[in-house]
Amino acid sequence: MTSPPLVVFGIPGLPEIAAGDDLPRLIADAARRADVQPGDILAVTSKIVSKAEGRIAAAETREQAITDETVRIVATREHPGGVTRIVENRLGLVMAAAGVDASNTADGTVLLLPLDPDESARRIRVAVEGRVGAPIGVVITDTAGRAWREGQTDITIGASGVRLLDDLRGAHDASGKLLAVTAPAVGDEIAAAADLVKGKTSGMPVAVVRGLDRHLDPAAPGGRSLVRPAADDMFYIGHREAHEAGRAEGREAGFAQGYAEGFAEGQAEERGASGAS
Amino acid sequence: MTSPPLVVFGIPGLPEIAAGDDLPRLIADAARRADVQPGDILAVTSKIVSKAEGRIAAAETREQAITDETVRIVATREHPGGVTRIVENRLGLVMAAAGVDASNTADGTVLLLPLDPDESARRIRVAVEGRVGAPIGVVITDTAGRAWREGQTDITIGASGVRLLDDLRGAHDASGKLLAVTAPAVGDEIAAAADLVKGKTSGMPVAVVRGLDRHLDPAAPGGRSLVRPAADDMFYIGHREAHEAGRAEGREAGFAQGYAEGFAEGQAEERGASGAS
Repeated sequence: MTSPPLVVFGIPGLPEIAAGDDLPRLIADAARRADVQPGDILAVTSKIVSKAEGRIAAAETREQAITDETVRIVATREHPGGVTRIVENRLGLVMAAAGVDASNTADGTVLLLPLDPDESARRIRVAVEGRVGAPIGVVITDTAGRAWREGQTDITIGASGVRLLDDLRGAHDASGKLLAVTAPAVGDEIAAAADLVKGKTSGMPVAVVRGLDRHLDPAAPGGRSLVRPAADDMFYIGHREAHEAGRAEGREAGFAQGYAEGFAEGQAEERGASGAS
Repeated sequence: MTSPPLVVFGIPGLPEIAAGDDLPRLIADAARRADVQPGDILAVTSKIVSKAEGRIAAAETREQAITDETVRIVATREHPGGVTRIVENRLGLVMAAAGVDASNTADGTVLLLPLDPDESARRIRVAVEGRVGAPIGVVITDTAGRAWREGQTDITIGASGVRLLDDLRGAHDASGKLLAVTAPAVGDEIAAAADLVKGKTSGMPVAVVRGLDRHLDPAAPGGRSLVRPAADDMFYIGHREAHEAGRAEGREAGFAQGYAEGFAEGQAEERGASGAS
């Protein structure tokens, strides 16, 4: 079994996006000019979705914006410039600063992630399919750091019409052996491939990913399908935070036990001392 | 500034690889048949490198093989089938089972990661460049799980001639703003893009990634450039392990403090009691 070649290219000609713009229509227009084909997947940088949806805050309210987007704190580190907060945000994403972003934004402003990236993706898909006249897929991407690895990769935070997790558990490998735990995170690999042409400095916020028709599925679940439930995660909080919580808990238990033993020993000691006097 | 399109395709016609095979020559032959061009990057699945280099162990020695590959244990979880060990291996990679793999291997065997994937990549690069007559790049890829995210993506564990981390710190975004912390992990994004055509079931272990000439650099460092030094990591060990270590430390400290206070209180109490008698 061979796979078709994968072709990824940026869509040129999108204007600078501002709050209130009809982004689905603008992308559909640009997609038609770029000759988007049935079966293509559009990878849309979340930043332009946020801009169109007016998810903008004043830079001086950045810390409050991060707090508002935060569901729980995963890890914090102080550094000379302030405090970095790695948090789980309301989309379930574990990200530095909750995904609140200050790059490629107007001066004095920060961008929040789209309110509902799956719904944003759905609207773009409907608009583009209206022009193409056949099914396509849309993923909304953002840039995220990782545990253990240097640098960032793009990941998929919302989607419409694309199966993001290719669950092979139960399938067989080329030698006929059962693939027990294999579930390629196709959605994140698509985002990564798209980032290779979009880049951070090119001003090209939408890429076409061609050759993955087999991952199209109009009924596929959205961005949450790539979010591991926190209860299943071995890295639910940072090691320093977990260590401190454990230390506080242990100190309390140890103190109680030590106090009880010490008290008894102290009494016995005093009793012996007074008995000997 | 626009980027050229990215084209990714599998190289057909590689034979099943066995220990002792001259993999660089076999890949160079297949690459020439597939019309590999100057500036292309070859993404080679580590599995065939391991097979050629004889990095094979009997399945019944799997647990020992994992132990041998382990530098430190990051997290462990018991489950009905045994214990999953997330560890840092001798390549600095944090992986389940240290990267020891039982899929797509001969029955009764497991595969260890290549001893020196950068050197393996270098040999392949030299052989392919000998045929192409111009610089190309090689990355050795493997499949890894992630914290917080479902599924696996391919990552780059060794490389030759490719700048894996595109350090933009100090560069400016499209709006002229300084990109403070941005360093795309290009090597991992290349591995991810290649996995979209190689897949887990296609039997296509080498992909060509075309259109990233700008990331070629004969002097670029290898796979370690994508490994975050453990001291910088907020997820050095799992939260349960960190919590347990903190709890043990806290218990000891708490016990000592509690014992001292309890002892004094016990003495005082006894003194008071005997004084009152």
